[in-house]
Amino acid sequence: MKQNIVQKIKDIVGNDNVLTSLEERICYSYDGTFQRGIPELVVFPADTKEVMEILKLANKEKFPVFPRGAGTGLSGGSIPISSGVALVLIRMNKIKEISPEDMLAVVEPGVVTGHFHQEVEKLGLFYPPDPASLKTCTMGGNVAENAGGPMAFKYGVTKDYVLGLEVVTPQGEIMHVGGRTVKNVTGYDLTRLLTGSEGTLGIVTEITVRLLPKPKEKRTALVIFDKLGDAASTISAIICNGVIPATLELMDQITINCVENYNHLGLPLDAEAILLIEVDGGKSQVEVDIKVIEEICENYHCRTIQIASLAEEREKLWKARRAVSSAIVQLNPTKISEDATVPRSKIPEMVRRLREIAEKYKLHLPVFGHAGDGNLHPNILADKGNKEEMERVEKAVEEIFLAALELRGTLSGEHGIGIMKKPYLQWELGEVGIDYLKAIKRAVDPNNILNPGKIF
Amino acid sequence: MKQNIVQKIKDIVGNDNVLTSLEERICYSYDGTFQRGIPELVVFPADTKEVMEILKLANKEKFPVFPRGAGTGLSGGSIPISSGVALVLIRMNKIKEISPEDMLAVVEPGVVTGHFHQEVEKLGLFYPPDPASLKTCTMGGNVAENAGGPMAFKYGVTKDYVLGLEVVTPQGEIMHVGGRTVKNVTGYDLTRLLTGSEGTLGIVTEITVRLLPKPKEKRTALVIFDKLGDAASTISAIICNGVIPATLELMDQITINCVENYNHLGLPLDAEAILLIEVDGGKSQVEVDIKVIEEICENYHCRTIQIASLAEEREKLWKARRAVSSAIVQLNPTKISEDATVPRSKIPEMVRRLREIAEKYKLHLPVFGHAGDGNLHPNILADKGNKEEMERVEKAVEEIFLAALELRGTLSGEHGIGIMKKPYLQWELGEVGIDYLKAIKRAVDPNNILNPGKIF
Repeated sequence: MKQNIVQKIKDIVGNDNVLTSLEERICYSYDGTFQRGIPELVVFPADTKEVMEILKLANKEKFPVFPRGAGTGLSGGSIPISSGVALVLIRMNKIKEISPEDMLAVVEPGVVTGHFHQEVEKLGLFYPPDPASLKTCTMGGNVAENAGGPMAFKYGVTKDYVLGLEVVTPQGEIMHVGGRTVKNVTGYDLTRLLTGSEGTLGIVTEITVRLLPKPKEKRTALVIFDKLGDAASTISAIICNGVIPATLELMDQITINCVENYNHLGLPLDAEAILLIEVDGGKSQVEVDIKVIEEICENYHCRTIQIASLAEEREKLWKARRAVSSAIVQLNPTKISEDATVPRSKIPEMVRRLREIAEKYKLHLPVFGHAGDGNLHPNILADKGNKEEMERVEKAVEEIFLAALELRGTLSGEHGIGIMKKPYLQWELGEVGIDYLKAIKRAVDPNNILNPGKIF
Repeated sequence: MKQNIVQKIKDIVGNDNVLTSLEERICYSYDGTFQRGIPELVVFPADTKEVMEILKLANKEKFPVFPRGAGTGLSGGSIPISSGVALVLIRMNKIKEISPEDMLAVVEPGVVTGHFHQEVEKLGLFYPPDPASLKTCTMGGNVAENAGGPMAFKYGVTKDYVLGLEVVTPQGEIMHVGGRTVKNVTGYDLTRLLTGSEGTLGIVTEITVRLLPKPKEKRTALVIFDKLGDAASTISAIICNGVIPATLELMDQITINCVENYNHLGLPLDAEAILLIEVDGGKSQVEVDIKVIEEICENYHCRTIQIASLAEEREKLWKARRAVSSAIVQLNPTKISEDATVPRSKIPEMVRRLREIAEKYKLHLPVFGHAGDGNLHPNILADKGNKEEMERVEKAVEEIFLAALELRGTLSGEHGIGIMKKPYLQWELGEVGIDYLKAIKRAVDPNNILNPGKIF
């Protein structure tokens, strides 16, 4: 990058908020995948005005801008894949407002999601989206990738909570879309178009999210099944009985074995599946719901069912699920975490196909995830130093996507397309769909400044 | 329209599915507003392929296409405002699938919303969007205008239920967006972009919607307040107590008087407000919720509260609310139904300003609507034959919009912009926002074929 441009950027954000050394730039070259791309410059704007000025300069001088939050993404969405500026939004980290009366909050993009959870809960409110990375990931990143999480089964994903956005357009203009009301049909729904657009259509500089009342009670059940098929039937039966649990998580046998080997919780190594089911709501309702769930689990031959109501006891039941990500890495160091999602009735079939794919390519492939909404997380554990193995991984990933699409699912439930799934997008959207997306991108970012090379 | 083009259209859909006489065309010149525009031709395609062919022809011959369903819209969104074809989608009226296991349904755009409600409820399922016109309006129209209704307070609006769409692009290509899973971040969220785009970005030819389990129980409360302020405080208190009713409807004193005069239900003419509150869910939960609501209403000095649980009794309580639209037309024949929406904490202030506006312009302006989500319906009753009065109406409407925006609300909660609110769009979105919308429209519809002249 030319020295005079670097100087102009320093003039905008101040010398202290620009990183230029290789060592520092490497720190902003990665996300939660194994992809890498070293930016020419790392820039930390303080406010919307600085973001606008940088984008105006970028359009004038024609350099790409790669916005990012905490870099926990799982599809390479924030990786600077060509020369240009990594725009890190973590300095914009104020919670500007929490309104119990309007049940909404206004935050800057750099607010850490878990911190935001704590702050709204202090006021008896509740922000459901709970991606696994919530202790470090940011609200801006959640909006960019439309983050989900276990709670999404009952409560939906990030886009279901975004009421309004302040956005800097790719050309550096400020725009306000949506607002402070749940109902809004004023013009195209740019709030939703921008949510999940992976930083390619605008940079979100302020987010207004809808909040809910915090559920008064919770009950958690850890249910062990001899047969995976019975666990899958249980999921369907619960939903068909009109009970919508807050979370409905599945772990397959390989996952169970990894977790047990990792922290010795006494999980049975011969069980084919564990379901972790949590219901929330008013006291009387959760009692009724958990009773219904218990009966269904028994009807479908569960081996054991443990139920907890106190927070500490519930946390014990969650321990196995929370250990999964750390535990499976024992199998191999490189984790390829997929989120291909299928209609929930297809879960047994999808799990069967995943087993076949794992065998065919001789790969470690534990399956766990958000079974209630069909959003499984098949994880391949490999070694990126082993070229031959990584080639098998690539083929297996292709087959996973094909299986999901054959079962009328989607490539990505909650991680986004980024760069990891770009080659497969056409399988789902077709040429017409991709052309439609590209036309939108070209129309609002004619110089292709914002996060180029992502999605398509 | 040139005779050879008319013939080509007839060749596509068959002679019987094209209307050419003035009398017939007039029938498709209006919607639920007082706007009019007579199309040159009325065309009834049978399937997606015919829609594609018509749009391809339209691009070749450069004539505009105005898609419509039942024509119940309240913003002029489907009015053929220039020469061209009214494309009526009511022949495409099949419910293709209702899946209790995946909790979704697939319908064609011409399916009548109320009929769809009945069909899913037979299977113990529930599709919440309930616009007032549900007995005649179509699912396609609901998607185009992102229809709401009383249930939206708890359950959200149409866009919250659309999982996937089959769309014919403005250039006549077929495209599938979204799908059959609740979670989907594969490319930009075109499902949401198209929902509420008022037929300007594509014609929806198949809709996949998410369903919920049908709530087992309901309780309805009709609460009479001496003071409007107490009714407003009650709304806030209910929500702050963590109770989310399925509906929370408000009627002001003028509305009460119209309804009482219309069908003599024994409503008190001196009461400033009535709240109609309905809770749904499991039996034990609705008992708890209605108890909380009763206490809050008493704390805020309600005059009387009537509670019903059986369907017939509940329907009696709804009678007043359902009579509103017919009752207020007694005041004057031309109804200008607005849906400016404010954050719910601003409802008392908004009602106060509406009263001031009514007095200032000497207009009949009953206020009722979905108070839970701030989506009031200020209705002006005038006589469109009275030019001087209609000028006052126009000024009053302007002030209503300004008031809503000043209170950080929006021009339209659920009716859309159409042609009625076009002049005011810039007040909310600004030039940058409108340019962004226009860029999208131009990009996907370069010949400006689809529903030109709407929104902006």
